[in-house]
Amino acid sequence: MTHLPLNDSPSAMQQTLGYRMTSWTPDHAAFEMPVSPEILNRAGIPHGGALATLLDTTMGNAGCYSAPGEPLHNALTLTLNVSYLAQARGKLLIAKGRRTGGGRSTFFAEATVEDETGVLIATGSGAFRWR
Amino acid sequence: MTHLPLNDSPSAMQQTLGYRMTSWTPDHAAFEMPVSPEILNRAGIPHGGALATLLDTTMGNAGCYSAPGEPLHNALTLTLNVSYLAQARGKLLIAKGRRTGGGRSTFFAEATVEDETGVLIATGSGAFRWR
Amino acid sequence: MTHLPLNDSPSAMQQTLGYRMTSWTPDHAAFEMPVSPEILNRAGIPHGGALATLLDTTMGNAGCYSAPGEPLHNALTLTLNVSYLAQARGKLLIAKGRRTGGGRSTFFAEATVEDETGVLIATGSGAFRWR
Amino acid sequence: MTHLPLNDSPSAMQQTLGYRMTSWTPDHAAFEMPVSPEILNRAGIPHGGALATLLDTTMGNAGCYSAPGEPLHNALTLTLNVSYLAQARGKLLIAKGRRTGGGRSTFFAEATVEDETGVLIATGSGAFRWR
Repeated sequence: MTHLPLNDSPSAMQQTLGYRMTSWTPDHAAFEMPVSPEILNRAGIPHGGALATLLDTTMGNAGCYSAPGEPLHNALTLTLNVSYLAQARGKLLIAKGRRTGGGRSTFFAEATVEDETGVLIATGSGAFRWR
Repeated sequence: MTHLPLNDSPSAMQQTLGYRMTSWTPDHAAFEMPVSPEILNRAGIPHGGALATLLDTTMGNAGCYSAPGEPLHNALTLTLNVSYLAQARGKLLIAKGRRTGGGRSTFFAEATVEDETGVLIATGSGAFRWR
Repeated sequence: MTHLPLNDSPSAMQQTLGYRMTSWTPDHAAFEMPVSPEILNRAGIPHGGALATLLDTTMGNAGCYSAPGEPLHNALTLTLNVSYLAQARGKLLIAKGRRTGGGRSTFFAEATVEDETGVLIATGSGAFRWR
Repeated sequence: MTHLPLNDSPSAMQQTLGYRMTSWTPDHAAFEMPVSPEILNRAGIPHGGALATLLDTTMGNAGCYSAPGEPLHNALTLTLNVSYLAQARGKLLIAKGRRTGGGRSTFFAEATVEDETGVLIATGSGAFRWR
């Protein structure tokens, strides 16, 4: 079942960089981040750190799904790995993540970032811990 | 020789997250990021993406030193890897990076983030390309 | 078109660990490694280094496809990232890799290792350079 | 205190690739791997997987020190990241690793591989779990 944690206020970092969750189901999450002036680097394209933030958030949430009414869980990132495949030339960064495995205390996840034209901008993987 | 690229305006992302270069010598760079409300996650500590941004920036600059008066170079991140060792409980994030190797087109770098009390918060490594 | 570089002698490392290519098409490669006694760790399961070797080889070849009769190219690994999702309890390690992006000099790839029962054992990503 | 787990038989993988522990102290470990014909790739240099194996083993042991007479612990690798800085042209691969942080269940480590002439060949980092 897809639902968004609407009643939960976004984090400060989320507001600072302007991303938002667009889908949330067991083991999956999706986020979008508009390419706003605030996230650009000197070359005029989204900073790699903005992409890393988006990937980290998407993967963490992919492993932390809570059904409506259930308490929210948080993920603690242990390691984050990002590959920067192409420069983001579009107006919207679309991230999709999924939990790929794990056990009782840790989980693994992967995520991609595409722009609105479907160009694959970055991929990420990581290990996370529930807390 | 240490010098800062003072005449060069910081990137938008840099202004958004509030970090700044504090040292720059051949193969080395240091940055600081105050723990401002804007970079916090829901747990009230700096978002892992803020640390990833700081590490990425520090490593990229470590490999791109330009002597005073020389043109600035930019680094393109190929891959970024971050290990989150401890939660940042301090007020200032201090990042130190160095170029560890590479050839004519690509370079490798490592960096650490400590808080002002010396606790090691995160480490990073990556591959970069000059452009 | 799928073909195997049959006339090309395998590397010494390939013979040492006992893996072999099973499929090779543009941007894709597959390898298999039997779970032989030689690759086990003290816990009696395949050593993480064997999985890393298999992932590295599969990804490198995924980006280096040569049509039959064309000269073989080699990939130089810049960075390799491996996530160990589950212990390999089966008898055969099956790796599938694909090139995910890149430009003229470098490419990115991802790969998975499953056992013969379909359990996802490890995932990998990396940046590579043609030479 | 430095001691080697001499009474403990090496793993099969260790015998296959020919590496051995040379130093072991709390939070630190060192291993050596001769550049034997068995670990070479088609280019005649050590396969990246051999370096990954050496780094993984060195880091895992760095976090698993046991004093003489105490029971041995094993580390489970969660994620492994390797940067390949230079081709190994020497005759001996010398790996040094150290635990960089962690808590009760997981730890982080870093390691380097140099050849006998001091050239930095590869660096690694990873997250591990005690078992």
